[in-house]
Amino acid sequence: MNYQTILEDIQEEIKPLLGQGKVANYIPALGAIPISKFAMAIKTIDNKEYSVGDAEESFSIQSISKIFSFALALKELRAELWERVGKEPSGTAFNSLIQLEFEHGIPRNPFINAGALVMTDILTSTYNDPKQTLLDLVRELADNPKVNFDEVVAKSENEWGDRNRALAYFIKDFGNINNAVDEVLDLYFHQCSLSMSCLDLVRAFSCLANAGKTVGANKVIISERQTKRINSLLMTCGTYDAVGDFAYRVGLPGKSGVGGGIVAIMPGHFVISVWSPGLNESGNSLVGTKALELFTTKTKTSIF
Amino acid sequence: MNYQTILEDIQEEIKPLLGQGKVANYIPALGAIPISKFAMAIKTIDNKEYSVGDAEESFSIQSISKIFSFALALKELRAELWERVGKEPSGTAFNSLIQLEFEHGIPRNPFINAGALVMTDILTSTYNDPKQTLLDLVRELADNPKVNFDEVVAKSENEWGDRNRALAYFIKDFGNINNAVDEVLDLYFHQCSLSMSCLDLVRAFSCLANAGKTVGANKVIISERQTKRINSLLMTCGTYDAVGDFAYRVGLPGKSGVGGGIVAIMPGHFVISVWSPGLNESGNSLVGTKALELFTTKTKTSIF
Amino acid sequence: MNYQTILEDIQEEIKPLLGQGKVANYIPALGAIPISKFAMAIKTIDNKEYSVGDAEESFSIQSISKIFSFALALKELRAELWERVGKEPSGTAFNSLIQLEFEHGIPRNPFINAGALVMTDILTSTYNDPKQTLLDLVRELADNPKVNFDEVVAKSENEWGDRNRALAYFIKDFGNINNAVDEVLDLYFHQCSLSMSCLDLVRAFSCLANAGKTVGANKVIISERQTKRINSLLMTCGTYDAVGDFAYRVGLPGKSGVGGGIVAIMPGHFVISVWSPGLNESGNSLVGTKALELFTTKTKTSIF
Amino acid sequence: MNYQTILEDIQEEIKPLLGQGKVANYIPALGAIPISKFAMAIKTIDNKEYSVGDAEESFSIQSISKIFSFALALKELRAELWERVGKEPSGTAFNSLIQLEFEHGIPRNPFINAGALVMTDILTSTYNDPKQTLLDLVRELADNPKVNFDEVVAKSENEWGDRNRALAYFIKDFGNINNAVDEVLDLYFHQCSLSMSCLDLVRAFSCLANAGKTVGANKVIISERQTKRINSLLMTCGTYDAVGDFAYRVGLPGKSGVGGGIVAIMPGHFVISVWSPGLNESGNSLVGTKALELFTTKTKTSIF
Repeated sequence: MNYQTILEDIQEEIKPLLGQGKVANYIPALGAIPISKFAMAIKTIDNKEYSVGDAEESFSIQSISKIFSFALALKELRAELWERVGKEPSGTAFNSLIQLEFEHGIPRNPFINAGALVMTDILTSTYNDPKQTLLDLVRELADNPKVNFDEVVAKSENEWGDRNRALAYFIKDFGNINNAVDEVLDLYFHQCSLSMSCLDLVRAFSCLANAGKTVGANKVIISERQTKRINSLLMTCGTYDAVGDFAYRVGLPGKSGVGGGIVAIMPGHFVISVWSPGLNESGNSLVGTKALELFTTKTKTSIF
Repeated sequence: MNYQTILEDIQEEIKPLLGQGKVANYIPALGAIPISKFAMAIKTIDNKEYSVGDAEESFSIQSISKIFSFALALKELRAELWERVGKEPSGTAFNSLIQLEFEHGIPRNPFINAGALVMTDILTSTYNDPKQTLLDLVRELADNPKVNFDEVVAKSENEWGDRNRALAYFIKDFGNINNAVDEVLDLYFHQCSLSMSCLDLVRAFSCLANAGKTVGANKVIISERQTKRINSLLMTCGTYDAVGDFAYRVGLPGKSGVGGGIVAIMPGHFVISVWSPGLNESGNSLVGTKALELFTTKTKTSIF
Repeated sequence: MNYQTILEDIQEEIKPLLGQGKVANYIPALGAIPISKFAMAIKTIDNKEYSVGDAEESFSIQSISKIFSFALALKELRAELWERVGKEPSGTAFNSLIQLEFEHGIPRNPFINAGALVMTDILTSTYNDPKQTLLDLVRELADNPKVNFDEVVAKSENEWGDRNRALAYFIKDFGNINNAVDEVLDLYFHQCSLSMSCLDLVRAFSCLANAGKTVGANKVIISERQTKRINSLLMTCGTYDAVGDFAYRVGLPGKSGVGGGIVAIMPGHFVISVWSPGLNESGNSLVGTKALELFTTKTKTSIF
Repeated sequence: MNYQTILEDIQEEIKPLLGQGKVANYIPALGAIPISKFAMAIKTIDNKEYSVGDAEESFSIQSISKIFSFALALKELRAELWERVGKEPSGTAFNSLIQLEFEHGIPRNPFINAGALVMTDILTSTYNDPKQTLLDLVRELADNPKVNFDEVVAKSENEWGDRNRALAYFIKDFGNINNAVDEVLDLYFHQCSLSMSCLDLVRAFSCLANAGKTVGANKVIISERQTKRINSLLMTCGTYDAVGDFAYRVGLPGKSGVGGGIVAIMPGHFVISVWSPGLNESGNSLVGTKALELFTTKTKTSIF
């Protein structure tokens, strides 16, 4: 199977769709990205890389970063983690407070905003300088010392962050956030602002396709068991209130961000990423989802 | 990998757990089943079968039957089906009416009761004798002409069926059920009452592991694409409000029933079934879930 | 204060509004009523009556009938009644099932459909021929032996009664309806179909302004204490999800029906009724609410 | 009717109940109040006052203060106010965020916390020194220049104010709070901390029984129309999720606070207040509610 040719075919095929969807504009910094941007990248577990489009251009990975903070929290707390966050799909929008009230401050899973805030609270309690620890990890995983937070985006997130602030105080009121809300949000907004390219992403998440070890350096990042757990959670909770649709169309565990990026994993085979800023109604990249669907259809790839 | 030995090891290992959980007692006919029952069966796509325990003893498959009616409706309506039912996990209990009200009578997915009722309404509109059509299909798939409805269970379901009756009238009020409620419920209660053994089940669902073709006879039941879609829906919606936990622990798409049965699929490899009537808090077989978890751990099987 | 002149002024003033709103059309029998109909009537506790418009023309009183069944149930069960129904406003639409699920089949109050169904279940358990008992009471209260059920409306309610059927089966599933749903609904649909004029209504409810005794015959219908309780419940729960707006604009306890009728009570002084079939968004008579607001403003009447 | 004797009888009658209920302990400053405290006071519109118990001892009036801020906001914004807050009972707990999410940041009424926060936002936008303006008004109404904020309570509210902070950021995210959340909360927490006695309260609210004019000085505070509107809102929304029960038992519009105070109004006749710190399950004073019920029963007082 020639992945490079397939990516190029997809790039051609999705061209008429570029411009569809809506660029996230809840913060000005994101709204300014041209909707026509497009990139895809693949990294296989035998260490081959393929890409098309602006695959080395960095963009705001936003909620994709929730995998990093969840993985770190899981390494640190292990089974105890599940006293503070659930593993079930929420069935509601990513920033809803309703379920949180019914379930007394225990977020449904680590990939909705509420759950990610609890993860950042855990990291804040665990590390002296959690922002630096997170950044060091991401740089190591992506094998790219230039990966960085985008301070303009982080500041913009903070300015327009009243909903997340409401979530954090709500959870704190239930006793499931232990640190000062401003501190937790500072880490959260920075994590969301991580600026990475499609190639950075497939490198950074190669361990999820490779039983927990980085492809190339073969360094153990997480256990094989934890890898499966992350992938299963991505499958059932990774794409907001469209997990069923994503599982149905793409057939791989994945995580999206409102910056227009998506990462998906074919365990034992490869990691694939895509970037296109126009979002569909569920807040997932419209062209990105289509491109992944084309890829798994053309390559007959699916975990199912 | 010697599946037979592994099944026997599991049978030994779960012995201390038999008796835990709670046998479904919402209808008298189910409450009478001894909690100590246990069986497992596997059928591989190279047509080998393995089993332990009471694997030829029939039990009430209950919600597992929702796969049959969904598959039939999908064959008949194809894309149009999705105007009448969603593909997302519900995040709430299997028989909740709340989401249905917010979403104006379109059930979240075909595997919660509301969704299954819409499937049976579709079958009622499509076939002259839907009960017979369904039974013929199941018998053919299981390669067992003796598979039958359990009329005692069906009658008991009907007697204690006020919640399902409420669901059906509610959906009908929204215009998403077209036939008489009594007729739809008659099919639904009979479908739930299907009496099958663990071996029947792995045979009947072998096509889901085999790209839509029955193992052995190699008959095309559904398309390869439809097979993936069913498996992906089972993954995200097959085990009530515990799909995350099931994906996390077992790592395979599956469907449970309150009769204590569970079926799970490893696409391209095998179908596995288990039966143990004691249920956990989510309404899934407690020992059955544990047995499947042991199996995928011992065999290092997972789609992730 | 010359009530007759005031009623005539109001009749003149609301003329430009006639035709606004929407006639209830969930059942064909109601949809056929001309939207231009208008009537008002008053009966004071010193036994004087005033009226304008079609005040002797009968219309479908619909939910206004819930006062009769609640009053009967309260007489029969007294304090025990409150184990089966609440006394709080629901904050949601009159036919919602959501709250009912959260609160395990105990309706919020006797004036939403769910609560009224529980009242009719109580009457069904209490009387040999509950329809006749109810009718006898209403005829006696209205001092009009011609008051009757409208069988065409009752039949139409039954035909289009899937939502109420869903409610009834849902409550029965929670154990708060003891009789056959069809029997309970038969009484409920007949009660809703009661056909009465504005004058019938002020006569029938005169006891609510007169400490429980009928005006004229001075017959004790309910105790003084029960009278206050009914009026307080009408104030907080009588007009669907617009009780605050009604209290604010009209300032009297009252009950509306989707037939366009409203009854309001000024304790110690009078009962007033109005009929105009066009409904506002909350399902209350648009012109009727306006007419009552004009009346209480012009007469400086208010319980506040 | 000798009000003084009746108050003394009630004081005697409720003695066995003192100690029941639970003193609010969500902030330490409130938890320290002895549960045995009791006081009642009445002021009639012919300017007579009666009282029993610690009627001159100040306590934290908490949510009773919401009447002051609502009245001020209503005076300032008039009809426009209703674009920012509803007039309907909420049907849920006083500090719930659920309804707020469904209704996009428009609180159900001015007496739940969310609504009161919007009122304080309006006052913050309107006045240069809103805390002082509010205090001046309350002192004038109570005819007591010593009425003051309790800074210890206000500070404690702030320390334990995460739920209110969550509410405020949530509303701000929907665009219904215009000022900085810290500023709005500062006013809100101070308002809640107002320390007043039972006699202060009946004097301060005498205008609500007297068509908007203070009793004694006869100064117009609000219009007659606004007075009715406030009373009607107190009736349908003044006592959290127990408005039906309060209307049913006490039969007067009223407002309670978690400090154990309750104020109730008999329009055209008197204002009555009670203080007893033990709360019932709805967060209203247990003994206070009972005392008011005894009063309206003994005096046959009720608006119904």
